Amino acid sequence: VTLDELPTPCAVVDRARLIKNCDRLKAIAKKHGVALRPHLKTSKCTEIAELAMDAHRLATVSTIAEAEHFRALDLIYAVGITPDKYARVPSGVAVITDDAGVARSLPDDARVWVEVDSGHHRGGVDVESDTLIEIGRALGSRTAGVLTHAGHSYAHGADVVAIAEQERSIAVRAKERLVSAGLSCPRVSIGSTPTATHAERLDGVDEIRPGVYVFGDLSQASIGSCARSDIAFTVIASVIGRGWIDAGALALSADRSMDAHGGGYGEVNALDGTPLGRVDRLNQEHGRVPALSLPVGARVRITPNHACITAAMFDRYYVVEEDRVIGEWPRLRG
Amino acid sequence: VTLDELPTPCAVVDRARLIKNCDRLKAIAKKHGVALRPHLKTSKCTEIAELAMDAHRLATVSTIAEAEHFRALDLIYAVGITPDKYARVPSGVAVITDDAGVARSLPDDARVWVEVDSGHHRGGVDVESDTLIEIGRALGSRTAGVLTHAGHSYAHGADVVAIAEQERSIAVRAKERLVSAGLSCPRVSIGSTPTATHAERLDGVDEIRPGVYVFGDLSQASIGSCARSDIAFTVIASVIGRGWIDAGALALSADRSMDAHGGGYGEVNALDGTPLGRVDRLNQEHGRVPALSLPVGARVRITPNHACITAAMFDRYYVVEEDRVIGEWPRLRG
Repeated sequence: VTLDELPTPCAVVDRARLIKNCDRLKAIAKKHGVALRPHLKTSKCTEIAELAMDAHRLATVSTIAEAEHFRALDLIYAVGITPDKYARVPSGVAVITDDAGVARSLPDDARVWVEVDSGHHRGGVDVESDTLIEIGRALGSRTAGVLTHAGHSYAHGADVVAIAEQERSIAVRAKERLVSAGLSCPRVSIGSTPTATHAERLDGVDEIRPGVYVFGDLSQASIGSCARSDIAFTVIASVIGRGWIDAGALALSADRSMDAHGGGYGEVNALDGTPLGRVDRLNQEHGRVPALSLPVGARVRITPNHACITAAMFDRYYVVEEDRVIGEWPRLRG
Repeated sequence: VTLDELPTPCAVVDRARLIKNCDRLKAIAKKHGVALRPHLKTSKCTEIAELAMDAHRLATVSTIAEAEHFRALDLIYAVGITPDKYARVPSGVAVITDDAGVARSLPDDARVWVEVDSGHHRGGVDVESDTLIEIGRALGSRTAGVLTHAGHSYAHGADVVAIAEQERSIAVRAKERLVSAGLSCPRVSIGSTPTATHAERLDGVDEIRPGVYVFGDLSQASIGSCARSDIAFTVIASVIGRGWIDAGALALSADRSMDAHGGGYGEVNALDGTPLGRVDRLNQEHGRVPALSLPVGARVRITPNHACITAAMFDRYYVVEEDRVIGEWPRLRG
């Protein structure tokens, strides 16, 4: 089976690029002497998780379904836990919190990472706050470590090298404060694909948690986290009319994270690589590619803005070597 | 079980509002003397399809998976067919085309609607074009009718009454041209939720194909296709931190169709209806609601911009009467 024969729209993973991307982050972790704890939310796929994890078999997940699905040795469910959700987290899976009340409410055998804000301002306590110490005290020996995610490193034009150092230094400082207060803090966990690939040093860090690097995408390429030629995930679509393809919002997602770089919902190429422009408008099952003049039934290949979100639109990946389909890997839903 | 006890994020359908919405469109179709052929892509749900269809059991779908799933008496797969896809369309399901080459390529027993452009400029031949006649001639007795979708009626600020008349008159004109050329054209099919709810007359039309009316959403309310109090589909989320909820891009979708009305990814209310603002930023599993100060674990209810796209993020609907969960309906994937 070739790309020309797949049912469209469908998601395709280039196996050689995927393996190269996985090997690259393993090498980065090794160079810095830190463990790699890949975030599996990007692929939600057992086969890709196995390629991404190293011998330590650490991993990060963002849903309870993922926590139930993946067989790692040590998993962090890295979205701020709520007390009612804790009951559904599989036994042994570590959780995160930035809330002292939640910290107090968790059971004795919980393993809890204290989330620290390193500038993303999404979750996490201020590193210099009393709350940090209050949570550490509330958790006591249940503290697995401090954890942060510098999500602001994804922003176009961000100084990723500086953000990587900010992420590192704030996380290390959080540990120092806990230890100085006589509290337990076994580990320091940081990371995102941009900061992991741009960091100049990771002193004091125990592990990194990048995710989207397995695939790469236009956003990551635009901030220098991967090369265009490293992008391993694409969508195959069919031309269904003058200027329209059968990949709409339910194939590409409505993600517009490349608005700062010319906008659109993804870059379109012919299967031979000829550039055909961008998807500039979406309906549920229709995508518009202005000036597209290929005949009805012709195939095109779309490189998405944000692989994590676009991949979530599919239930399986077709795995390819060059243009030949060599397998099909299921993707977890939820 | 109440809304406070559901696992979040989750999709909720208000049964009373859903039935009211279904009854409303049945009454509109009856008033105009046309058949109702609901588009099932919005709900992708058997139970909702059964409420939406009338005794004629006509329906519209937008994927082959839907065509395989739904048990209607007469189904149209209403995305421009490609020759290779036709082989996967279940026997008896009608298809659409605006391409003379495709029309010629379809088998003798195909039932084919000729797609006409009524101003949306997505698919469809120009009503005054030679191509219309060429396709009608190529199809011969395989022509099921002419079909159009005035998708430009969704645009904020559009004159929906005028677009409804444009949709009707262009579709009727297409039939007139085919018939004048001595060609077969049994039926005229038009429709969208905005035009179906705004149309002043439907002379010459045989059927309407609205979809999102079963749920309604902020977009439809903003153009007057439904009242805010008719919206039957919402997402329940939990507060996971200061200003953040556990509904991100994989719960709400990245749809920004309300940008013209203040932007954001959906309106947030407390379960008691107190307005809490809008979701103004999304990550994969996180949504930001500025100034949200409810405690971690508190529930909120989000009304989405575009129900079709947001509903696609979920595998099931929790069906509620007031705040009580009375059932769970699976949603088709694909």
